[in-house]
Amino acid sequence: MSLPQSVKILINYFAKLPGIGPKTAERLVFYLIKQDKNLLHGFAQSIIHVKDRVTRCQECGQISEAEKCQICLDKTRNHSQVCLVAESMDIASLEKPGAFAGIYHVLGGLINPTEGLTADKLNIKSLEEKLARGEVKEVVLAMNPTIEGETTNIFLNKIIKKYPGVKVTKLARGLPQGADLEYADEVTLANAFSGRIQV
Amino acid sequence: MSLPQSVKILINYFAKLPGIGPKTAERLVFYLIKQDKNLLHGFAQSIIHVKDRVTRCQECGQISEAEKCQICLDKTRNHSQVCLVAESMDIASLEKPGAFAGIYHVLGGLINPTEGLTADKLNIKSLEEKLARGEVKEVVLAMNPTIEGETTNIFLNKIIKKYPGVKVTKLARGLPQGADLEYADEVTLANAFSGRIQV
Repeated sequence: MSLPQSVKILINYFAKLPGIGPKTAERLVFYLIKQDKNLLHGFAQSIIHVKDRVTRCQECGQISEAEKCQICLDKTRNHSQVCLVAESMDIASLEKPGAFAGIYHVLGGLINPTEGLTADKLNIKSLEEKLARGEVKEVVLAMNPTIEGETTNIFLNKIIKKYPGVKVTKLARGLPQGADLEYADEVTLANAFSGRIQV
Repeated sequence: MSLPQSVKILINYFAKLPGIGPKTAERLVFYLIKQDKNLLHGFAQSIIHVKDRVTRCQECGQISEAEKCQICLDKTRNHSQVCLVAESMDIASLEKPGAFAGIYHVLGGLINPTEGLTADKLNIKSLEEKLARGEVKEVVLAMNPTIEGETTNIFLNKIIKKYPGVKVTKLARGLPQGADLEYADEVTLANAFSGRIQV
């Protein structure tokens, strides 16, 4: 193909992003070429800023521009409830419904030995330090309902059990809102039965 | 949401790209934060380079880093055949099969009055200059088979007809390779009938 070198290079960068194939990358670059110079400079600057400015919260491990994230600094939140998540991104999803007023702790992944992610690579030490201080009354396990998520849950449950007085819970399993019984999978239906609640 | 400012800004930039919604933009930014600093600097540099270095070929209007693009400079190509396309990006697709050895001319869009794209905004003047030189023997219309594409074809056909000795053709319409008759739409089937070829 006869594309200019600088265009090919940018297409390659976009094609490295998750979920973006070579065809989509091409389309994005052709779109960008048509845009205003200021927008492209802003975009480029923003990529550099995000790497230079974003660090991890010392308390919970989520991405933050300061030493402590806004959630850990928020005194109005319930610091005795800690919600364990795999990635910073999960916090964005869990915060949207506004159903949880505690704090978070980011593991940085899920146990997955086939991909070389063993428990020692997760952010567990600082969790234990937090538990050792004795302020935490409940840990909510909010990992994805997958094999890796369940493996991580089992492992963490054992660790948390070492600290008496800490209740361990996990997010409810069942039918998602708006679901159709006819199309629900067997595991979801089994979970909906076993976790049924009195009305 | 409690996302750091620099993260929010970059998410907004990604969400401006075509086909990328806020959720995908979020996922891309969280992916980038985890990447190596060099990769991010390279990515950012590459966005700036693409704008600073890429210009339009003086001959055909396609994107190029030089005054003339590689295709227009290529003496082994047949300069008497000109394929008219709406956008530079279309050339990338048309070059892949290697079925056309002529040169291209980029209009920069299709006639679409409802979006303010009238014929005078297209790159037609330089096409007429090319035709006036008398070297062109055939113009292939390669616009998308849409209402805008057909409108542009009709308009261009009238202009090209002013130059005697120039044959005007358009890309064949019919069944795409691997298609299933059962699922082909009526217009495609009608085109396949009217354009049937002797075997």
